[in-house]
Amino acid sequence: MSEYGYTFGGREPIATIKPGSPVSLRTLDCFGGKVRGVDDLPSRVCVFPELNPVTGPYFVEGAQPGDTLAVHIVSLTPASPVGISSTFPHFGALTSTGYTRTLQPPLEERVWLYDIDLVHQTVRYQARNSDFSTLLNLAPMLGTVGVAPAAGEVRQTIVPDVHGGNLDTPLLAPGATLFLGVNVPGALLALGDGHARQGDGEVGGVAVEVAMDVTIVVDVIPGERTGTPRLETDRQLISLGAARPLEDAFRISQEDLVRHVAELTGLDLLDALQLVSQTTEARAGNVVDPQYVMSAAIDKRHLPGVVAYGGVHDRLRGL
Amino acid sequence: MSEYGYTFGGREPIATIKPGSPVSLRTLDCFGGKVRGVDDLPSRVCVFPELNPVTGPYFVEGAQPGDTLAVHIVSLTPASPVGISSTFPHFGALTSTGYTRTLQPPLEERVWLYDIDLVHQTVRYQARNSDFSTLLNLAPMLGTVGVAPAAGEVRQTIVPDVHGGNLDTPLLAPGATLFLGVNVPGALLALGDGHARQGDGEVGGVAVEVAMDVTIVVDVIPGERTGTPRLETDRQLISLGAARPLEDAFRISQEDLVRHVAELTGLDLLDALQLVSQTTEARAGNVVDPQYVMSAAIDKRHLPGVVAYGGVHDRLRGL
Amino acid sequence: MSEYGYTFGGREPIATIKPGSPVSLRTLDCFGGKVRGVDDLPSRVCVFPELNPVTGPYFVEGAQPGDTLAVHIVSLTPASPVGISSTFPHFGALTSTGYTRTLQPPLEERVWLYDIDLVHQTVRYQARNSDFSTLLNLAPMLGTVGVAPAAGEVRQTIVPDVHGGNLDTPLLAPGATLFLGVNVPGALLALGDGHARQGDGEVGGVAVEVAMDVTIVVDVIPGERTGTPRLETDRQLISLGAARPLEDAFRISQEDLVRHVAELTGLDLLDALQLVSQTTEARAGNVVDPQYVMSAAIDKRHLPGVVAYGGVHDRLRGL
Amino acid sequence: MSEYGYTFGGREPIATIKPGSPVSLRTLDCFGGKVRGVDDLPSRVCVFPELNPVTGPYFVEGAQPGDTLAVHIVSLTPASPVGISSTFPHFGALTSTGYTRTLQPPLEERVWLYDIDLVHQTVRYQARNSDFSTLLNLAPMLGTVGVAPAAGEVRQTIVPDVHGGNLDTPLLAPGATLFLGVNVPGALLALGDGHARQGDGEVGGVAVEVAMDVTIVVDVIPGERTGTPRLETDRQLISLGAARPLEDAFRISQEDLVRHVAELTGLDLLDALQLVSQTTEARAGNVVDPQYVMSAAIDKRHLPGVVAYGGVHDRLRGL
Repeated sequence: MSEYGYTFGGREPIATIKPGSPVSLRTLDCFGGKVRGVDDLPSRVCVFPELNPVTGPYFVEGAQPGDTLAVHIVSLTPASPVGISSTFPHFGALTSTGYTRTLQPPLEERVWLYDIDLVHQTVRYQARNSDFSTLLNLAPMLGTVGVAPAAGEVRQTIVPDVHGGNLDTPLLAPGATLFLGVNVPGALLALGDGHARQGDGEVGGVAVEVAMDVTIVVDVIPGERTGTPRLETDRQLISLGAARPLEDAFRISQEDLVRHVAELTGLDLLDALQLVSQTTEARAGNVVDPQYVMSAAIDKRHLPGVVAYGGVHDRLRGL
Repeated sequence: MSEYGYTFGGREPIATIKPGSPVSLRTLDCFGGKVRGVDDLPSRVCVFPELNPVTGPYFVEGAQPGDTLAVHIVSLTPASPVGISSTFPHFGALTSTGYTRTLQPPLEERVWLYDIDLVHQTVRYQARNSDFSTLLNLAPMLGTVGVAPAAGEVRQTIVPDVHGGNLDTPLLAPGATLFLGVNVPGALLALGDGHARQGDGEVGGVAVEVAMDVTIVVDVIPGERTGTPRLETDRQLISLGAARPLEDAFRISQEDLVRHVAELTGLDLLDALQLVSQTTEARAGNVVDPQYVMSAAIDKRHLPGVVAYGGVHDRLRGL
Repeated sequence: MSEYGYTFGGREPIATIKPGSPVSLRTLDCFGGKVRGVDDLPSRVCVFPELNPVTGPYFVEGAQPGDTLAVHIVSLTPASPVGISSTFPHFGALTSTGYTRTLQPPLEERVWLYDIDLVHQTVRYQARNSDFSTLLNLAPMLGTVGVAPAAGEVRQTIVPDVHGGNLDTPLLAPGATLFLGVNVPGALLALGDGHARQGDGEVGGVAVEVAMDVTIVVDVIPGERTGTPRLETDRQLISLGAARPLEDAFRISQEDLVRHVAELTGLDLLDALQLVSQTTEARAGNVVDPQYVMSAAIDKRHLPGVVAYGGVHDRLRGL
Repeated sequence: MSEYGYTFGGREPIATIKPGSPVSLRTLDCFGGKVRGVDDLPSRVCVFPELNPVTGPYFVEGAQPGDTLAVHIVSLTPASPVGISSTFPHFGALTSTGYTRTLQPPLEERVWLYDIDLVHQTVRYQARNSDFSTLLNLAPMLGTVGVAPAAGEVRQTIVPDVHGGNLDTPLLAPGATLFLGVNVPGALLALGDGHARQGDGEVGGVAVEVAMDVTIVVDVIPGERTGTPRLETDRQLISLGAARPLEDAFRISQEDLVRHVAELTGLDLLDALQLVSQTTEARAGNVVDPQYVMSAAIDKRHLPGVVAYGGVHDRLRGL
């Protein structure tokens, strides 16, 4: 049985992991390693639907439907000295797609290679059609983390939804804890799609893709339900919304943050709406996948004394 | 003739301003000063369409159709010790509206008052239905800056579009330069809707509203067209998109940034798309107005040697 | 002073019309007559913003803000033997536009000519790149009918909104009565954009455009407010919604129909929702303009004994 | 093993059916028969995710991935004298939902019962809060028909997509042939969600739901791929688009119809766009499900001599 899959749900676990015990694993890049140079056009070398492989799923000891799974990202280290990006026919926010269809031919398919420098923590952008080149910060993140969906559904890894999936937010980086509602015994966590870096919205459709050495540590918060995915960092509480149109992704993220703040502070819903309204950071995750993602973040210093999910973020952070 | 108006276009200039000469003025809050306490419900004390007054318009010497007007925000100082916010029936992202109609009654209308402390540069959030209170940073910005629209149109100030208007982005703050295409002789600049602070998306519909003492300085870039509004700060080049649905606001902002980067760097469009894709910050402006706003921002250090609009931002910044 | 204009609002009336007295007038085609053959590409021969001319505005005797204006279409007769259609760069539902921007070049601009046969009431489609030809029914309609907007706004004729405008619904045909809320004394009615026929949604962006000989008769329903435009035909009561995204146009049309049915029948809102839900016909008007249009129609035989707007439709129909 | 399921994909076939041989079966109503009176509120008597049961799946002899499955609806007869409708919390187009979230409480949950008269072919609407009552035509249709999705996905029956599913279009009625792309050997056809009648858009979220006696006959068109679902009736060729936002559902349906017409007539894409643009009927299917549905229909008499899918509709119709 392969340790890589292309769906959330529908697969047997490849291993069991224990809450509190760090797990190290390797994720493949979104092309499954098949794009090795600028002439390896993804639409030719990759075979649908074998795109965006995830490592897993892992059976999390003790996780039961109705619980929340906390996934803390301890570290992400690119496992290749070269990151890859591309355009892809009918994918991306500035081209016609299978959803936003037009009669125009798609944009040219083109591949870019980025040199990754772990010592200086940089990636180098090099234009394909000119000498222009510029150094960018290395900012590793995971594009895709999720669990088995509810209601017996099986979803391609490219889809973000309430089970997680291809969330594609730069906030899912080392030091962050992701909270996902558990739908099946063991949660069946899987993860992949490492990015050396990504802009908000991933407008071209593809980040700086790279295989990744990943260390995570998980925990289970029993009996606490989580609807849409949430994140916690040392600085912020964040709700994620995945939907189309983009305003619904925005609404989901903001409404969830309002309800979370109300629950944590005892504010009524309107008072919580007011506080969120003046303080939230709202950034695009992806605006290219079958569902788009928006994040709504509030600074924890605006919520004095508040502890989310029983302090699991700080606990996992401290391990 | 009043120095305040409720439209872009359709009004005579109240004064002439000269490029390079700082101008100081006062803007009213979005309620025109009529909400003075928590019992002054905006839908009762404000008379449609007299909402969101702007100061102006100003005739800018030398500005001609086809030019770009640069508006540099030198300083913004709240002109009242109390900021005001509220819910408003059928307005906001988490309630039914005149566009996203439902059959439910609207949310309760409620007013919040914020103490503004200019010494410590804070505003105090105080819940209405509990003792919860928290200090937030003062972060003054202008919600509404625009010029007369093209094609003889006259638009309410609440509408953001290519002529500017109610952009409602926290990026429109002191130190920023806004670039707007000029549609009529003199441009007919007007501005208002000061916010002591605002979260991205302005989800409740209303920021911390306050009358503002404003100092700006403008310049005209002759013969250079600007489509959708752009911003420059010391750190970033930013394109704004105003549209519904929100993904179109995102697309406009990103496409404009891609084209701007291509023009400034000589990159072809796909190479520029790739660079923007890995570096852009994409934040919601408002998700409540008749058109929504998204911003797409790129760090200028990723564009070594690049100078936008002939360096007008640095020139105005240095005055 | 020209009898043609390119905006709703911002123009003086060209004539006064009396309720109950039929008025005959000529409308120009949307190109203002400048496209005369397949080589007259619209984007070259038409000068922005002089597109989509309307005839008027007419001052309607007795119409006051807060009233409803009823515009009954008595007859529409094409005033030219040739109808014209085209693609137009960055316009239409299956190409990138100024809103739904992509980086692809626009579709080719192409003009089609349709022979109009008034005797047989047909128009002939003739392909440009093959011999394929087919006869279609002549089905004349007006694309654009509106009044001066509220709040002192002036809008290009291409925009549909609560004041009417470029509604582009095939339902606006002879025998139909259009109801529009009056915003200024005299209403300032204008109309144009005749179509020899049009498909729902106007997906290519342009119908079979033709100058039109128009006869209308108007009436004023004093003190009765109309929000979004409504239509009545011998068979149906119809509400129109103009907005983006398209689901908001749908919501507006359906919500207005539910409230109208509730008001006419005495049903409570939920009972009216239920009845509408099982009976409504929901068709796209345009899905190409700055705002999209959806119609929600209910058959009057499902509403026994109901009379809308005091029976003005039947009265005007009988004149 | 139950003959009813709640997903497309993920289930073993309950029987094998042969192309050309009529099959008769019973479908349950969308509540699984659990709502029996006005006090049986659906959100209480139905247990998530056991909603919208489908009968099947059926293994279709000879169907292989890459083929098209034709499903001809021979007859639909309500199997109960009472049809049921309701509101449902957070479901419907005129209430806040799990996607278009607001902070308002949901609409009241209410059940309506409709007497079905097979002799006179009527259903009776009876208001709950008044004496208002009106007769509507019986117009039976199937809300949900689909096959196993591609890429190993399993989807709840409530979701419409390229595999079919909860399409909720009144066009899926006796005499219509539905064309679906086959993704797995045997296609795995399932069907359910009979409606005694439904308005376009299903704005309240629920049609006149009823168990149904169904007769279908299927055929396989080998080696012919179908992307988005299509319908053929004696009068029209129809493409369906399922997506959010609604304009994308519109775009998918129209683009597919343009390509289908181009392929059947030899027209180039622009000439086909032009013909479709002047002739299409564009109606809402549902505007309430996780994805919305729009239909694009062209009258076959505008396409003289054209035969789709080798004439399978006429062949099945004649059986």
